[in-house]
Amino acid sequence: MTHSKKRIVSGMRPTGALHLGHYFGVLRNWVNLQDEYDCFFFVADWHALTSEYADPRKIKGFVPGLVKDWVAAGLDPARCVIFQQSQVKAHAELHLLLSMVTPLGWLERCPTYKDQKEQLAQKDLNTYGFLGYPVLMTGDILMYKPEFVPVGQDQLPHMELSREIARRFNFLYGDFFVEPQALLTEDSKLPGLDGRKMSKSYGNSISLSEDMDSVRQKLMTMLTDTNRLRKADPGDPCVCNLFPYHKILTDPERLPEIEEGCRNASWGCVDCKKLLFESMERFLAPIHARRRELDENPDRVWEILRDGNRRAEAAANETMDALRAHLNFDF
Amino acid sequence: MTHSKKRIVSGMRPTGALHLGHYFGVLRNWVNLQDEYDCFFFVADWHALTSEYADPRKIKGFVPGLVKDWVAAGLDPARCVIFQQSQVKAHAELHLLLSMVTPLGWLERCPTYKDQKEQLAQKDLNTYGFLGYPVLMTGDILMYKPEFVPVGQDQLPHMELSREIARRFNFLYGDFFVEPQALLTEDSKLPGLDGRKMSKSYGNSISLSEDMDSVRQKLMTMLTDTNRLRKADPGDPCVCNLFPYHKILTDPERLPEIEEGCRNASWGCVDCKKLLFESMERFLAPIHARRRELDENPDRVWEILRDGNRRAEAAANETMDALRAHLNFDF
Repeated sequence: MTHSKKRIVSGMRPTGALHLGHYFGVLRNWVNLQDEYDCFFFVADWHALTSEYADPRKIKGFVPGLVKDWVAAGLDPARCVIFQQSQVKAHAELHLLLSMVTPLGWLERCPTYKDQKEQLAQKDLNTYGFLGYPVLMTGDILMYKPEFVPVGQDQLPHMELSREIARRFNFLYGDFFVEPQALLTEDSKLPGLDGRKMSKSYGNSISLSEDMDSVRQKLMTMLTDTNRLRKADPGDPCVCNLFPYHKILTDPERLPEIEEGCRNASWGCVDCKKLLFESMERFLAPIHARRRELDENPDRVWEILRDGNRRAEAAANETMDALRAHLNFDF
Repeated sequence: MTHSKKRIVSGMRPTGALHLGHYFGVLRNWVNLQDEYDCFFFVADWHALTSEYADPRKIKGFVPGLVKDWVAAGLDPARCVIFQQSQVKAHAELHLLLSMVTPLGWLERCPTYKDQKEQLAQKDLNTYGFLGYPVLMTGDILMYKPEFVPVGQDQLPHMELSREIARRFNFLYGDFFVEPQALLTEDSKLPGLDGRKMSKSYGNSISLSEDMDSVRQKLMTMLTDTNRLRKADPGDPCVCNLFPYHKILTDPERLPEIEEGCRNASWGCVDCKKLLFESMERFLAPIHARRRELDENPDRVWEILRDGNRRAEAAANETMDALRAHLNFDF
């Protein structure tokens, strides 16, 4: 397969409904990249097992939801390959082959490894599979020989590890893999409703598929500037949970007016929330419309995956055939 | 698939010609088991990569030779399934799934792990794949749901680890795998020509495919009882390198005569070697005859593997389909 556009690969774990934090951190970038690049986006269901191995049965339910979230957010299955990792079995084989050449120390010293183990201390992550998570990820990437991998700043250490594994493979066996480059994408970091990182587990998130009544209720009960007890008190947008939402979701021309109205108390928090709800409605309307289409046609998601799996498999098999020949392991 | 006979699974790495040590330690047992059991024997080529990853290209050449050694030694492809690990891709998937549930500590504390690292100190075995070797092996075994795995005493710790992984899987997800039992086989431990363990790297081995001129030369130059300098000196079979060979290869009725002749110096070392050569000739003749047949028909080995791979794959796919359904990971 020749591809004139440069290729990118990225994936997400199916662990529940995506929220606005995912959208503005990652998904929006994917949507924006799909014309310029030859894109492979995958549902990382085997990856989900590295930390969710104790309860694999719930993963199946999250897979169609994740694809719906992607397509609702604007990924177009006609313009990118949307596939499911576990349905392209070559990923398991490449993972096994890469495991042979990956030094243990690289994995043990991977900065996110200890981090994650501490963050998820309630889970027993002292497993072989969890340690090898970057090996699996490296295989997922290298399989499609992409020029770029869209990542945020925090994922750069993983990217560097993937590049090192590719280098070591090429060093041992002769050039085969292209070292993928990180494509640093803008991470707008929309905070959660309470100002902390948006996360379903903090209960401070708005999902992409959330109905508007629930969105309204969440916005209306958001804390704003807690020093502004009455409408007549002047407020400070810098310490308000709401204002970052306006910066991302509301027409930028209206921002000075909002900021000023808050500071000089001519504009109350309820007004501010009503405006934000309008912005949110405008933003979510097309996402919800696409989502409704998918919900009304439940086969559609599986069609998208079947088609994407087929295309991904063709590309993966091409890589694996060449790889086995390169290693004289083609029988 | 129902199988009325109990099933066994075992494998060998393709790392070069098999010698008499392999035959009397393992292969003879396999040959003897093939009627009583439903047998799956596999060429462990992915396993070979765990320690031979630096030079994967030579493995391909060893695969047909290993199958020829097996069939020449008496394995009958019509009565057992002879297959190649890397050609049944489900092994990579099961390895990945088992990696998720295998505690790191079990692998780090595996008694053979440090042993092997020390023995093979010239190789860099601080790799993820080498640490995970028992996980791969466990998958190879569990895939076929065997009742037994024929092993020697030295492999019992590995067997116990495989059983523990199966138990943990069943504990986490509900009963699925049968814990395979070790089938302790007789290990005749034919020593090398110099009395140490027989090993190609010690240069003290006789391969199953060795031509008789070379066998004769090796036997004739073997050291016997080094205290017996002249034929007239009495010898001691207990310290002779030759005598263990007679015990395994020569008609047992002749052993008292040999022992006595040695002790009372009525029988010289050259006589003893000539007799051993005759025994060796009788033993190797049918093996060499079957080997010649295979060498004259080079396609035959690949036919055997194609047929075995197909049968193994059918059994493996059956296990994986049931396993994915068991985990609610069937899409």
